[in-house]
Amino acid sequence: MSSYLITGAGRGLGLELASQLSRRPRSEVSFVFATTRTTVPDALKSLIESSDGRVVHVPLQIRDRTSIERAVASVSDKLEDRALDVLINNAGVMHFTPDGIANMNGLREAFEVNVEAVHSVTSGFLSNMKKGGEKKVINISTTLGSIAYSPTYAMMPIPAYKISKAALDMLTVQYAHELGKDGFTFLAVTPGWLRTDLGGDQADLSVEEGAKATIDVIFNNGHESNGKFLNIYVPGWEKPRGVNNNFYNGKEVPW
Amino acid sequence: MSSYLITGAGRGLGLELASQLSRRPRSEVSFVFATTRTTVPDALKSLIESSDGRVVHVPLQIRDRTSIERAVASVSDKLEDRALDVLINNAGVMHFTPDGIANMNGLREAFEVNVEAVHSVTSGFLSNMKKGGEKKVINISTTLGSIAYSPTYAMMPIPAYKISKAALDMLTVQYAHELGKDGFTFLAVTPGWLRTDLGGDQADLSVEEGAKATIDVIFNNGHESNGKFLNIYVPGWEKPRGVNNNFYNGKEVPW
Repeated sequence: MSSYLITGAGRGLGLELASQLSRRPRSEVSFVFATTRTTVPDALKSLIESSDGRVVHVPLQIRDRTSIERAVASVSDKLEDRALDVLINNAGVMHFTPDGIANMNGLREAFEVNVEAVHSVTSGFLSNMKKGGEKKVINISTTLGSIAYSPTYAMMPIPAYKISKAALDMLTVQYAHELGKDGFTFLAVTPGWLRTDLGGDQADLSVEEGAKATIDVIFNNGHESNGKFLNIYVPGWEKPRGVNNNFYNGKEVPW
Repeated sequence: MSSYLITGAGRGLGLELASQLSRRPRSEVSFVFATTRTTVPDALKSLIESSDGRVVHVPLQIRDRTSIERAVASVSDKLEDRALDVLINNAGVMHFTPDGIANMNGLREAFEVNVEAVHSVTSGFLSNMKKGGEKKVINISTTLGSIAYSPTYAMMPIPAYKISKAALDMLTVQYAHELGKDGFTFLAVTPGWLRTDLGGDQADLSVEEGAKATIDVIFNNGHESNGKFLNIYVPGWEKPRGVNNNFYNGKEVPW
């Protein structure tokens, strides 16, 4: 019976992760803390209302240390003497750069949200999570952050996103090396190219498929996978397919 | 007869690169533009005075777009109708984190200096360099930025440096993909662990050895190496050796 916190749960993958987790048996999932910056979008409101108290909204500005402290306090209160088990750093931003890399957009913001804020949120929850049994931190990454795969994605004009996600992968590994000995499991997971606001209409998978496969990765990987960069597994997508020759084979992604 | 610009040339590797380049025949090296933030340290002053006009100081605050524009104008003036041939992004910062990754020091500054400023300086010089024959950009990276190698360096408490250098590697590859077709060559080069202020006394190689081997990489790698992450080659260091089991085999470094 594990508790989950998901950042950026107002829409897209974060919302769908919250929704699917909240439908698991109570023996598997106790609470799902769904964070958004300020307001609660209607879809999340509906999910909360139909969740019988299992989905809890937590306001969280991931770039604001004070807001993080408040969120940690709020989660601790709700869990009483238990700890947060699984932290899913899902919130992220992606900027397009139509005019060439010399005019790259959003490099600072991508770094602040996709790397620095993940560090801030993770470090903020560490003390609480250390008391727990599961101690699992999932950083939502992307194969677009794989430098080894970069020739495949050379035509996608989102350099700031790619750069920030490579940095996120190294952040994940640094946490894994240091806190693995305390029983923590840090994973970088690529959830696939999904038909969300971020992914667009041409993407490979529905958000439901991506969220399901991401939850499979979370459930199926324990401490032995600490520090890995894992692809989701989607039946039928073992080999390259679709517009971008993506594949979802459930294996490790090269850095 | 190529012109070079080296950032962070006031000391350490940057200064030694400037010194060694300025001693190459004029048929190989015309000018060496040595940048420092403000003042010119004595060692660089001596080098300039003994260089017969080949080493030229350029003030450059690499985090300041206006300062970059001024440096570009100053270099363009000096080169008259010729272009800058080789840009060496060498300036960098490294922060120690003695108290564990949750208390990581210098993440923002490492990103600003080691990634964002490299982007600013590179994009600033692009228009000038496009007119040149060589069009080579060398980003000084490190095997510490290799996520694949990270288990080897797990005990080195410099996470912000590692994260920023992984991001720098992706930045290098993004530039390489886009500007390779215009004849540019972008390389990430690891200059070895050197006995500089940054590397400390226990390091593997003298700064002279590291600079010589780095210049070898620059001279020996043309457009066919665009987008690669290259190790230096030092005879006797083909296999792991020394305190950190480093090696300098002249081959590609895995990301």
